[in-house]
Amino acid sequence: MKKVVIIAVILVSSAPILLSAQTSTTKVKTPSLSQETSACLDCHKQFTPGIVEDWLRSRHSKVTPASALRRPEMERRISAKKVAPPYGNVVVGCYECHGLNPDRHRDNFDHMGFKINVIVSLNDCATCHPVEVKEFSGSKKAHAVGNLTKNPIYHTLVETVISKKAVKEGKIVQLNVSDFTQMETCFSCHGTEVKVGGMQEVETKMGKIEVPALTQWPNQGTGRINPDGSLGACSACHARHEFSIEVARKPYTCAQCHLEPDVPAWNVYHESKHGNIYHSNHQKWNFNAVPWKVGKDFQSPTCATCHNSLITGPDGKKVAERSHDFGSRLWVRLFGLIYSHPQPKHGDTSLLRNKEGLPLPTAFTGEIATEGLLGQDEQTKRRNLVSGICNRCHSTSWVNRHFEKLENTIQEVDSLTLASTLLLVEAWNHGLAEGLPHGKNPFDEAIEQMWIRQWLFYANSVKYASAMTGAPDYATFKNGWWNLTENLQQIKDWMELKRKAK
Amino acid sequence: MKKVVIIAVILVSSAPILLSAQTSTTKVKTPSLSQETSACLDCHKQFTPGIVEDWLRSRHSKVTPASALRRPEMERRISAKKVAPPYGNVVVGCYECHGLNPDRHRDNFDHMGFKINVIVSLNDCATCHPVEVKEFSGSKKAHAVGNLTKNPIYHTLVETVISKKAVKEGKIVQLNVSDFTQMETCFSCHGTEVKVGGMQEVETKMGKIEVPALTQWPNQGTGRINPDGSLGACSACHARHEFSIEVARKPYTCAQCHLEPDVPAWNVYHESKHGNIYHSNHQKWNFNAVPWKVGKDFQSPTCATCHNSLITGPDGKKVAERSHDFGSRLWVRLFGLIYSHPQPKHGDTSLLRNKEGLPLPTAFTGEIATEGLLGQDEQTKRRNLVSGICNRCHSTSWVNRHFEKLENTIQEVDSLTLASTLLLVEAWNHGLAEGLPHGKNPFDEAIEQMWIRQWLFYANSVKYASAMTGAPDYATFKNGWWNLTENLQQIKDWMELKRKAK
Amino acid sequence: MKKVVIIAVILVSSAPILLSAQTSTTKVKTPSLSQETSACLDCHKQFTPGIVEDWLRSRHSKVTPASALRRPEMERRISAKKVAPPYGNVVVGCYECHGLNPDRHRDNFDHMGFKINVIVSLNDCATCHPVEVKEFSGSKKAHAVGNLTKNPIYHTLVETVISKKAVKEGKIVQLNVSDFTQMETCFSCHGTEVKVGGMQEVETKMGKIEVPALTQWPNQGTGRINPDGSLGACSACHARHEFSIEVARKPYTCAQCHLEPDVPAWNVYHESKHGNIYHSNHQKWNFNAVPWKVGKDFQSPTCATCHNSLITGPDGKKVAERSHDFGSRLWVRLFGLIYSHPQPKHGDTSLLRNKEGLPLPTAFTGEIATEGLLGQDEQTKRRNLVSGICNRCHSTSWVNRHFEKLENTIQEVDSLTLASTLLLVEAWNHGLAEGLPHGKNPFDEAIEQMWIRQWLFYANSVKYASAMTGAPDYATFKNGWWNLTENLQQIKDWMELKRKAK
Repeated sequence: MKKVVIIAVILVSSAPILLSAQTSTTKVKTPSLSQETSACLDCHKQFTPGIVEDWLRSRHSKVTPASALRRPEMERRISAKKVAPPYGNVVVGCYECHGLNPDRHRDNFDHMGFKINVIVSLNDCATCHPVEVKEFSGSKKAHAVGNLTKNPIYHTLVETVISKKAVKEGKIVQLNVSDFTQMETCFSCHGTEVKVGGMQEVETKMGKIEVPALTQWPNQGTGRINPDGSLGACSACHARHEFSIEVARKPYTCAQCHLEPDVPAWNVYHESKHGNIYHSNHQKWNFNAVPWKVGKDFQSPTCATCHNSLITGPDGKKVAERSHDFGSRLWVRLFGLIYSHPQPKHGDTSLLRNKEGLPLPTAFTGEIATEGLLGQDEQTKRRNLVSGICNRCHSTSWVNRHFEKLENTIQEVDSLTLASTLLLVEAWNHGLAEGLPHGKNPFDEAIEQMWIRQWLFYANSVKYASAMTGAPDYATFKNGWWNLTENLQQIKDWMELKRKAK
Repeated sequence: MKKVVIIAVILVSSAPILLSAQTSTTKVKTPSLSQETSACLDCHKQFTPGIVEDWLRSRHSKVTPASALRRPEMERRISAKKVAPPYGNVVVGCYECHGLNPDRHRDNFDHMGFKINVIVSLNDCATCHPVEVKEFSGSKKAHAVGNLTKNPIYHTLVETVISKKAVKEGKIVQLNVSDFTQMETCFSCHGTEVKVGGMQEVETKMGKIEVPALTQWPNQGTGRINPDGSLGACSACHARHEFSIEVARKPYTCAQCHLEPDVPAWNVYHESKHGNIYHSNHQKWNFNAVPWKVGKDFQSPTCATCHNSLITGPDGKKVAERSHDFGSRLWVRLFGLIYSHPQPKHGDTSLLRNKEGLPLPTAFTGEIATEGLLGQDEQTKRRNLVSGICNRCHSTSWVNRHFEKLENTIQEVDSLTLASTLLLVEAWNHGLAEGLPHGKNPFDEAIEQMWIRQWLFYANSVKYASAMTGAPDYATFKNGWWNLTENLQQIKDWMELKRKAK
Repeated sequence: MKKVVIIAVILVSSAPILLSAQTSTTKVKTPSLSQETSACLDCHKQFTPGIVEDWLRSRHSKVTPASALRRPEMERRISAKKVAPPYGNVVVGCYECHGLNPDRHRDNFDHMGFKINVIVSLNDCATCHPVEVKEFSGSKKAHAVGNLTKNPIYHTLVETVISKKAVKEGKIVQLNVSDFTQMETCFSCHGTEVKVGGMQEVETKMGKIEVPALTQWPNQGTGRINPDGSLGACSACHARHEFSIEVARKPYTCAQCHLEPDVPAWNVYHESKHGNIYHSNHQKWNFNAVPWKVGKDFQSPTCATCHNSLITGPDGKKVAERSHDFGSRLWVRLFGLIYSHPQPKHGDTSLLRNKEGLPLPTAFTGEIATEGLLGQDEQTKRRNLVSGICNRCHSTSWVNRHFEKLENTIQEVDSLTLASTLLLVEAWNHGLAEGLPHGKNPFDEAIEQMWIRQWLFYANSVKYASAMTGAPDYATFKNGWWNLTENLQQIKDWMELKRKAK
């Protein structure tokens, strides 16, 4: 009954004019607000004012797709050739996003008389940003869920780490993994599969309302499987509801997932000369310019500069194309699984096969997969592209030496991973631990955990430090060479003690 | 003799007009400067100019209590109903704070002809801010010293960690704990008991002067026991002498004490979406507004938003009352001692009793204390309050799911603490280590240290990551599930080696 | 052929007027650009626009040495008494730095018709900044390469950590150290010896060009041995090509090398009250003022304030002289090798001799070297200087207590290092490990690695936390007392297990 009254109030009062009365941080001229969005705002400015204010700061609230399309191509932030009515001539408001493609959305529900999706999916964003969505869809980021869950080896590692445990008769027993713990550990970055389990009633400040009961939700992981079947969450990097290019370009966004000990990109950046200059001077830079001009808009790169933004010189000449396939500029995959290797051709890494027939990019003893990895030509092409970005500030010989050094580093630290692998094999063969040869979990004993540290934490740290022009401590004492060396010694020590205690 | 001359100079020259000649970053009109404060400034602008300049930036230097009281109640930064003469009509200068309640202050001394307290105590600040002082006085923060020192279990842990040690005949011998080390470790955050040990002569740039000889000083710990007997240091968060609300609201203030590995609130925040938005955009926010308006003054919360600030919507409607009892909005205490539990009813946690009769919130095997913890109703009320803050930006179902997840996480990681506790008990029972059953220190052997890591570092990290809407690495690899799992295995491994070496 | 044409184009077109056509972030009047620099800019604004834009932001691009010399002495950023023609009356452009002293530079080469040095050396910067160069040249920073490589003990530690390793017949075998790994680990901060190995052809966007083939390059380490024989890289802290005093004064610059776990100055600062105030308020400060005025230009110190900047009061009265010998204000060297000790008299620490005749500042059991360390008088003088800086904001008794506390802390944590050393000696004597008494590497076994952690990571953390007015977590749980205590126990535990397994 209450609900009915509320809807009636909205229907009577939801006119664009209402917005002018609101308390807003920004004065906006909003002749082009859709009627539906006006209705949304009318309630939500009272009940969730934070996101309304956030949206009011956004470009979405100020620009219509039609006007966005009038910009010169290089300056455009929209990749559709045209945006069909009714969307072209209204600003991009609540309903323009949450009301799209209702038939595809299993999370669509009747909300105050409107058909609303809880989740705005990758496919919805494609209405205006189809090129970005297409690029992203082929990337490892889009396949981040399946790359963990469909791969039995990675899956075992995940389960070993995040399963509940108990001690029974002096033994550690591995129990099940809860949905909630998945959501906030591995799959917080990788994404969850959001399913709709019927409707539920929730008690809100407006009274009781019915909303879809979503599982594995909330989640903004990069490869989220949406209720419309699409893969990916744009909001992983473009935080709701300002969707600011500035936030996405600043390193804190990537830092949410790419950080020590396993992927210490943020930590290495912070400690590098690039990071030093960023931290010291970034207040004076322009993080909103499209295209993004080297030297003029920024003095030192952030993650986005090298990995995906449309970059030009100060003269406007293109240096690198925008891409939302974040691996598309990269030739080598530093992140060792368990050794570094050429980037996969496709974002779905479960398609890879190593010489043992497993869906891994490298064999246990280091040989790279024969199928599914980039060939030499494509690698060279990509390295030249990235070198070209470095080259806008650094001399050619500087850049060449930098990448020669990186190649050497990869070989050296991978050889320290191999050394630990050979010790582990010896431990397994001598019965000091039970692993692959005995058909047992290779990730759950102390020596196996030390071995995981070698490649997942320490080798990665040194490689990231090397790749990002120097973070001496991450190469040396902070999860670096010190730890590679110390850990190798501890593995050997552990084996000796076990052997003597047998 | 020199001293006498100096005082004479001051008495002759200390007039408000002097201040106009000083080099200051801010032009201030100071008709309402007290004569005493003028005298202070006259010397101190020469001898400690840094704090004078700092004070000149403060609201204290520009506003009299009387004018502060003229603001509408919601905008007021002063909670006294009135401020008695002579304090109401002068700005809040040196003497207005350091000259209060001289009779109560054992640190009061004759300084250049004035009766000065070295330490401005909680009780002194109550002259203008009595509500804040009252709230704070009942909090765990106010009792932070006694909560460590009056509890024999915590006290033993403290002593074990920070006592000097020596090796005598191959054994590690625990020696005494020095005052200085107490001051800069545990009690740097918790606070020290500052006592006055007579007077001492110090050689200053003005010549020799006599000042009180304070013990356990300098210290700005939150629960400092002041020489007037009051508990607390406002300067722990409101840094001298600007006393800026902006500094207190920015997360760096809380971060001084709430950080990894034991209380990783700052680290988790830094890595969360809230932290990302803060770091990317905070330059554009208003950290000085009272009340503090969601969406309008800030886009994402800092610590103060959820824990204590007066928050309203952009429309000025109250969302949460200000409170300086920083635990007063919380229902569950994540920080495990050694398991999570309902928040204590009173800030003095030595009043708690667990089922073993010890002053602990939980028993060794997890049961919560029967006395002194919040009941279910109060817990629900508080959870609703905090949910209401979240709800200004997040939908009700989003918020509900978030707190359901948190509850699950607490149970799961506490069960991993329990698993480690059961192994420890087994080790004690089998003589692999000497602990409680043998009447020995339960915190000083290797297995005991591993056990402490389980609840103090790793379980806390996962719980904080969960509570603060996601910091995937602190939940997973960085002191999270990885470490809970690895540590449990190492405890078991250690026990096996010990058993075999027996 | 292509090269010839390019040079011809440059010679025809290289006139100052060209610059006016460029896309620049700053409008600059450049009547005083040298003809050579004009030629450089003409190409480099196309090929390396990032560094050209960076330079355009610099003071170098806007001020001639002659005009810099006209400033009052206290405000001067140039220490030469005069700068000889042709350098005095042109702005400091590409050629003014990269064209200096060609005869001394083994890295000088013919580049498009000009004689260019790849590396701008300390000696080149001395043209305008001779006092800074002289100060720096006597410092530990200038001798940072030799201090590692000429000292057989440190050299062994370096080799142990960063050498490649392999497992051969169950043993860990230490292989050689690569140039590249040296460059990006220890010597990334310390500096490399850059040598010229003939010329090489590189493929650039302008076609093939010949450039010197430098070894151990790129490197900006503080003690870099330059191809002209001079020691030091000003660009270690004054990042190319803006050479901003602001960047050098912000803590991120020092943080590149001075960070946890071995030298946790940055981490401690971040967590201290000073760091809190910096992070909260630094946007409002003036990092470019010379002299740098306490209270007026900044509210809390950064590294540069205490260690090397020219500091005055708000009234312009000198508090501390500028010095580019970064150890010159310090009396005690906190960094334990392996115990703290008075600062060395000279930056070349290989001149030191301990009682065992080794080039170390302390003996194995703690006695300080008899030769080469500061005497008591000089220590007192320096302590008074630094106390005078603290004293601009803190009372004399506050400052006195602070430094008394520091002295106590040094003694206490050094005694925990001694305890670990005595256990190590016992292990060596009982054959549990092979070290010095057996003429073996004292840094490569598990117990030795634990011992290194004690002094290099944990003792240092506590000492830095103490010295920098408090970072309670670095003193307690984060590489602090917790770890000193735990590690000591683990050393003892390891010894027992080894003894029983023998």
